[in-house]
Amino acid sequence: MGAALALAERGRGRTAPNPNVGCVIVKPASAQAGDRVVGRGWTQPGGRPHAEAMALEQAGDAARGSTAYVTLEPCAHMSPRGPACSTLLAEAGVERVVVALGDPDPRTDGSGIERLRAAGITVDVGIRAEDARRSMAGFLARQSFGRPHVTLKLATSLDGCIARADGESRWITGEAARAHAHLERARHDAILVGRGTFDADGPRLDVRLAGLENRSPRRILLSGSAREPDGWTVIDAPGRIGDLDAVDYLMVEGGAQTAAAFLRADLVDRLLLYRAPILIAAGMPALGDIGLDRIADAHGRWRGIDSRVLGSDRLDAYERIRD
Amino acid sequence: MGAALALAERGRGRTAPNPNVGCVIVKPASAQAGDRVVGRGWTQPGGRPHAEAMALEQAGDAARGSTAYVTLEPCAHMSPRGPACSTLLAEAGVERVVVALGDPDPRTDGSGIERLRAAGITVDVGIRAEDARRSMAGFLARQSFGRPHVTLKLATSLDGCIARADGESRWITGEAARAHAHLERARHDAILVGRGTFDADGPRLDVRLAGLENRSPRRILLSGSAREPDGWTVIDAPGRIGDLDAVDYLMVEGGAQTAAAFLRADLVDRLLLYRAPILIAAGMPALGDIGLDRIADAHGRWRGIDSRVLGSDRLDAYERIRD
Repeated sequence: MGAALALAERGRGRTAPNPNVGCVIVKPASAQAGDRVVGRGWTQPGGRPHAEAMALEQAGDAARGSTAYVTLEPCAHMSPRGPACSTLLAEAGVERVVVALGDPDPRTDGSGIERLRAAGITVDVGIRAEDARRSMAGFLARQSFGRPHVTLKLATSLDGCIARADGESRWITGEAARAHAHLERARHDAILVGRGTFDADGPRLDVRLAGLENRSPRRILLSGSAREPDGWTVIDAPGRIGDLDAVDYLMVEGGAQTAAAFLRADLVDRLLLYRAPILIAAGMPALGDIGLDRIADAHGRWRGIDSRVLGSDRLDAYERIRD
Repeated sequence: MGAALALAERGRGRTAPNPNVGCVIVKPASAQAGDRVVGRGWTQPGGRPHAEAMALEQAGDAARGSTAYVTLEPCAHMSPRGPACSTLLAEAGVERVVVALGDPDPRTDGSGIERLRAAGITVDVGIRAEDARRSMAGFLARQSFGRPHVTLKLATSLDGCIARADGESRWITGEAARAHAHLERARHDAILVGRGTFDADGPRLDVRLAGLENRSPRRILLSGSAREPDGWTVIDAPGRIGDLDAVDYLMVEGGAQTAAAFLRADLVDRLLLYRAPILIAAGMPALGDIGLDRIADAHGRWRGIDSRVLGSDRLDAYERIRD
């Protein structure tokens, strides 16, 4: 399932409105050989083919008697773009299917698993469900909240500044951290900045990493003015992000007022904090007012999920606790 | 040497003006037994006995033919408070001495090692010297700069605030982080706060940890007014810390202006950043102006030396790069 989860990452930010799923098909050990992987698939850009269809195509006849590991319940609904994956798995003669997470899509929601079992296939559900949830956070946010999953990215000094008081901000973090931030861009369908950042920096928001230039996400501008700059989509409030078509993963890149507006509306699901080992002091704070009434109210909202060294910088990732 | 370094920590913050040294005496393997530790010592409160004297006393006759691991070059100078450790080691019949770091004290500075060698003892120098340097940072700062080693402690939210805009600051960090900060207090000879923090919080600055209540450090107030509150020592500028008697480790605890004053004067050697997984936003920044002219000037000054989880908080430690 770990391998399937890793494959699922390949589609992240390019499969909306479909989930980014990963699938690995394993032929069990025989007298001739040990376990071997006969098919690997992940949801392709635009959402089709599905991960299972790709892995089955790769496996061919070897799928007969195999075990399929899938990060999401195989779909049960026919589509003009292809047959249901649960049907494909049954027809290919797969003997066992291991599923990380049930599909909340009302068109499937358990019926994919039912269909597999009806075909005599053994089905296990819930293996690494938590990891799968994170892996498909965009799809799940769209299903649960009718809006994309939102990551807020901040790059600060140790004392939490995003620039000097006069606005100078280059460079706070080093090359490794900036490259990582570009990689994160490629994992999002769209990136949003506010009018202030747009006017001050004229950001390109593209992915400047060799081989990933074509992964640059859509550019969204949060602005009260309807004037739409060339190559940009304008929304006038954070609450409008649900209207963005085919955007399941949205990254908010700045500045402080825009970040605060998303936090005030409780629309941030994940924080990426890149921190450089420098002190700026008396500089520009990372966040405008988010309307916190008491320190006590700030607790219990964020859970650390990753902390890593990037050159001389550190990245800490947090997710919003919503239970 | 690792064991000797660990023992050295026991004296930290209580041995000034003497260094906090650790010593382990090991009897080499014989036909009857393997290597065994026959003496353990660390500089006692007030600076005497020295680590070697304590370890030798414990070892007794077993010191004959042994190896002594010491974090600092044994002293060569007689004192009214006891004989030189290099003499004691030779008289006890120690065969080999392993030293982490040479003693920069002009009264020793190589002559301790010479005396050992003259007595026929094998001496190795430089084993884990970097760790020893950190372990005796207070003594070394006093020797090199004529002032204590200074740790600046900050406890902030993820966005670098030390309080809400109205001053509310309890609690940002959780119990584990606060207990760790109290342990750090016990490792310092003195703690300093500014007038603003003194007036606003009336801090006790004591060590509220079971068994360490008597380890509470001296309390120093940075203030333009000479009026000395009961139980406090007043200094009127960061540059006066060198005048503090028997203070080799000083911790600066706040607030933002005091921290900035020490940073402006380049008097901070170590940063302890406790960070809670909360966002305050538009709150009180951790630091007042430190006079940074360009972002580029902020780089290359701090090196990460520790990062650890404390409950739901994280502690990152940095040291000033001074080469």
